[in-house]
Amino acid sequence: MEALSGKHELEFTVRDYECDLQGVVNNANYQHYLEHARHEFLITKGVSFAGLHEEGVDLIVTHVEIDYKYPLKSRDRFIIRTDIERDGNVRLVFNQNIFRLPDEKPVVKAKVTGVATMNGKPVPPGNLIEKLGLL
Amino acid sequence: MEALSGKHELEFTVRDYECDLQGVVNNANYQHYLEHARHEFLITKGVSFAGLHEEGVDLIVTHVEIDYKYPLKSRDRFIIRTDIERDGNVRLVFNQNIFRLPDEKPVVKAKVTGVATMNGKPVPPGNLIEKLGLL
Amino acid sequence: MEALSGKHELEFTVRDYECDLQGVVNNANYQHYLEHARHEFLITKGVSFAGLHEEGVDLIVTHVEIDYKYPLKSRDRFIIRTDIERDGNVRLVFNQNIFRLPDEKPVVKAKVTGVATMNGKPVPPGNLIEKLGLL
Amino acid sequence: MEALSGKHELEFTVRDYECDLQGVVNNANYQHYLEHARHEFLITKGVSFAGLHEEGVDLIVTHVEIDYKYPLKSRDRFIIRTDIERDGNVRLVFNQNIFRLPDEKPVVKAKVTGVATMNGKPVPPGNLIEKLGLL
Repeated sequence: MEALSGKHELEFTVRDYECDLQGVVNNANYQHYLEHARHEFLITKGVSFAGLHEEGVDLIVTHVEIDYKYPLKSRDRFIIRTDIERDGNVRLVFNQNIFRLPDEKPVVKAKVTGVATMNGKPVPPGNLIEKLGLL
Repeated sequence: MEALSGKHELEFTVRDYECDLQGVVNNANYQHYLEHARHEFLITKGVSFAGLHEEGVDLIVTHVEIDYKYPLKSRDRFIIRTDIERDGNVRLVFNQNIFRLPDEKPVVKAKVTGVATMNGKPVPPGNLIEKLGLL
Repeated sequence: MEALSGKHELEFTVRDYECDLQGVVNNANYQHYLEHARHEFLITKGVSFAGLHEEGVDLIVTHVEIDYKYPLKSRDRFIIRTDIERDGNVRLVFNQNIFRLPDEKPVVKAKVTGVATMNGKPVPPGNLIEKLGLL
Repeated sequence: MEALSGKHELEFTVRDYECDLQGVVNNANYQHYLEHARHEFLITKGVSFAGLHEEGVDLIVTHVEIDYKYPLKSRDRFIIRTDIERDGNVRLVFNQNIFRLPDEKPVVKAKVTGVATMNGKPVPPGNLIEKLGLL
């Protein structure tokens, strides 16, 4: 697998409570994993999801597309690779891929679109763009 | 089963995502059910958990004791019966029981102790006590 | 809003634990809601998600697209409308919309693609198709 | 803080989706953390929760007592220390403590009682006891 320069990577282990009665990770929990990876990615850029909320700015997701390619099971290790791009003036697009470890089997491919909002209205992400290196 | 006069009752149906790889409701999810039943009980008394939070008052749980008697499975219907009592000047104690429907099989018996806090400090629940009829 | 004949409808109330630190329902939880609505829809057609699993057939989601239009808050009531169509020989597509009640404000629009699998391999949904009235 | 020899330790970071509208980790999620720590502890002893389930043996929780001492917030790091003891012939008791890092502030103190079951009936934990060093 080629090196994905510039991407943020975060490693996880499946916890048993994340599996459902089919014995695999429940679909919704991948969104939890992806959210956590995005927030950790933002932290590396000096942007705090919780901190922004306290300042009155909320990062919200407006659209997700997720391909489920292979299910994760109890105690599987996996990695999420995240990068980000701009889409026009207000939208940020996160491209996120989950691979099982150590065999790098593709598990999930996701495209997550978000905007920054203040009082429920989209705002240009302004200095967020700068911090994220998307200027 | 004798009528439990004065108790609040709320009916639920198990959702598949609440079950774990053992095919039964995951233990932690009973705490979610119990919380929801408490908050709905409080609403019937004119007390909103979310509303109090916005006013700077947080109801927090300080102690729980839960007996797990029988597991719930996919699509089981169940009822939670909740009542409340005072324990000294600041503590409120919720007694909560979960019964499977329609056979009333005991599922969970819980005692949940909470306090009202402001800026992280316990405060006498004051007019909460009055609203809850515990004066 | 026009009558959507033939659609399955299921009503919910937001539970406080489903809200995150932004004070609104966490994105992943909408997938939980949607899953529960699909499974209840299937039940009305005589198809049990948990029952199929016990018979060795797993219904799995292969792709989701979700538009998040408006956030739900503590105690909001909402309805999910679900219908289903075939996509080729093995894929089933669920179209699902969430509306806040009572004002029918659009909250989420989702398209969820699934397949039936046995031992991890897709199988033609066979008598599932018949039960679902998609023959 | 004195060294707790023989205890199992597992480190976590709070994920934003684990926080509720009060901005702190939701009470039920501590049970998820505690479960994960127990299962990882068992793995170090050669006992797999998911593996046992596939062999027809289910470890189930029959009773929990949890003291909530201090709330965790977004991105807090914490550690769970777990040890285990026997209680009679069939019960295992896990003593678990959560401390915030790096200041070791006590967060949660829990006592979790479990039994091994087969076909829903408690069974003497037998070679489990041996593996866990409780003989």
